[in-house]
Amino acid sequence: MEDFLVLVDIGNSFFHIYKNGEIYNLKEPKKFSEDVFYISVNQKKEKEFLELNKNAINLEKYVKFDTSYVGLGIDRIMACKTIKDGVVVDAGSAITIDIMQNSIHLGGVIMPGIRGFREAFVKISKKLNYNFCEVDFNKLPHNTQEAISYGSIGAIILMIKNLKKDKKVYLTGGDGRFLSRFVDGIYIKDLVFRGMIKTIKEDL
Amino acid sequence: MEDFLVLVDIGNSFFHIYKNGEIYNLKEPKKFSEDVFYISVNQKKEKEFLELNKNAINLEKYVKFDTSYVGLGIDRIMACKTIKDGVVVDAGSAITIDIMQNSIHLGGVIMPGIRGFREAFVKISKKLNYNFCEVDFNKLPHNTQEAISYGSIGAIILMIKNLKKDKKVYLTGGDGRFLSRFVDGIYIKDLVFRGMIKTIKEDL
Repeated sequence: MEDFLVLVDIGNSFFHIYKNGEIYNLKEPKKFSEDVFYISVNQKKEKEFLELNKNAINLEKYVKFDTSYVGLGIDRIMACKTIKDGVVVDAGSAITIDIMQNSIHLGGVIMPGIRGFREAFVKISKKLNYNFCEVDFNKLPHNTQEAISYGSIGAIILMIKNLKKDKKVYLTGGDGRFLSRFVDGIYIKDLVFRGMIKTIKEDL
Repeated sequence: MEDFLVLVDIGNSFFHIYKNGEIYNLKEPKKFSEDVFYISVNQKKEKEFLELNKNAINLEKYVKFDTSYVGLGIDRIMACKTIKDGVVVDAGSAITIDIMQNSIHLGGVIMPGIRGFREAFVKISKKLNYNFCEVDFNKLPHNTQEAISYGSIGAIILMIKNLKKDKKVYLTGGDGRFLSRFVDGIYIKDLVFRGMIKTIKEDL
């Protein structure tokens, strides 16, 4: 089935495209000739996209998902939908950390993305304008670059560890692979798309 | 002694003034007739200040402080200088968390300030434009406001708890009192000025 359709995850920074098992990101919307299923967290980008793909189907109307969280983003729902038990980390513009147990969503946390932390530091002072370096939790930072890396990437890792308890961690999103180096977790590039495919197969 | 002088802590957002035991913040520099001792982390603001207070003495040249941290901000040095053992949290534009042991600085972490987190969220999406609410670590967030509060204030608290181990926590800075509600710590409004007074008494 997956070969005859295009899946589009419209985020705040990119159009994330899944086609023929490949994933790629576009800054601008694109017209597709295949059947298109999509989700969106960005109204403006969604409108641009629908102008080119008038028959695209928004999966948000159909997806079944068990949560008491009010206003859970559709991208987070899809990332969580194929995870029965575990912590789901989607590291993009924002970093969302959601807890699944027995296929029920128990709640979740939102942090700024890695780029958001970088920009926040630069806005505070030019003296904090460093790329992030590796974080070593076994020693305290001894210069500015180490201090801001610990205070951002370290803070994200601490939050994941605090929430995971004995659960497995599943990471996705642009910075998911990078973060997977620091937590004992599995990076799944197409996690959101897996949720979309499950929705098409089971909920439509 | 403290009654005949003015202490000025020039930060990235404010001129913090200590005079006659009172502390107040100014957006613009001011001319003083008393003896003025100051520290600064902002060159531009320092220059403006020195134009009005030509004889003001920069304590950075005189302060004695034991650390192997390269480039430790003078405001952090002063906040730590009167703490023999403990974790020193200065919550302003940035939040710095420094570890003192036997009057030696062991290292420290920099996080964005609470306002920095707020602005980072708003920049990611208008949907994340909420004031922060109370963080309850005993339950998972169930809406956006709870999720971003947990992901910012919660992240700061987690970081402090992670670093404090069995040490006491001393908080200062604009958001220090607020944060002291969430950690078992002591809020000391004039912590930086205490370090400046100690410097004048012992190092000058």
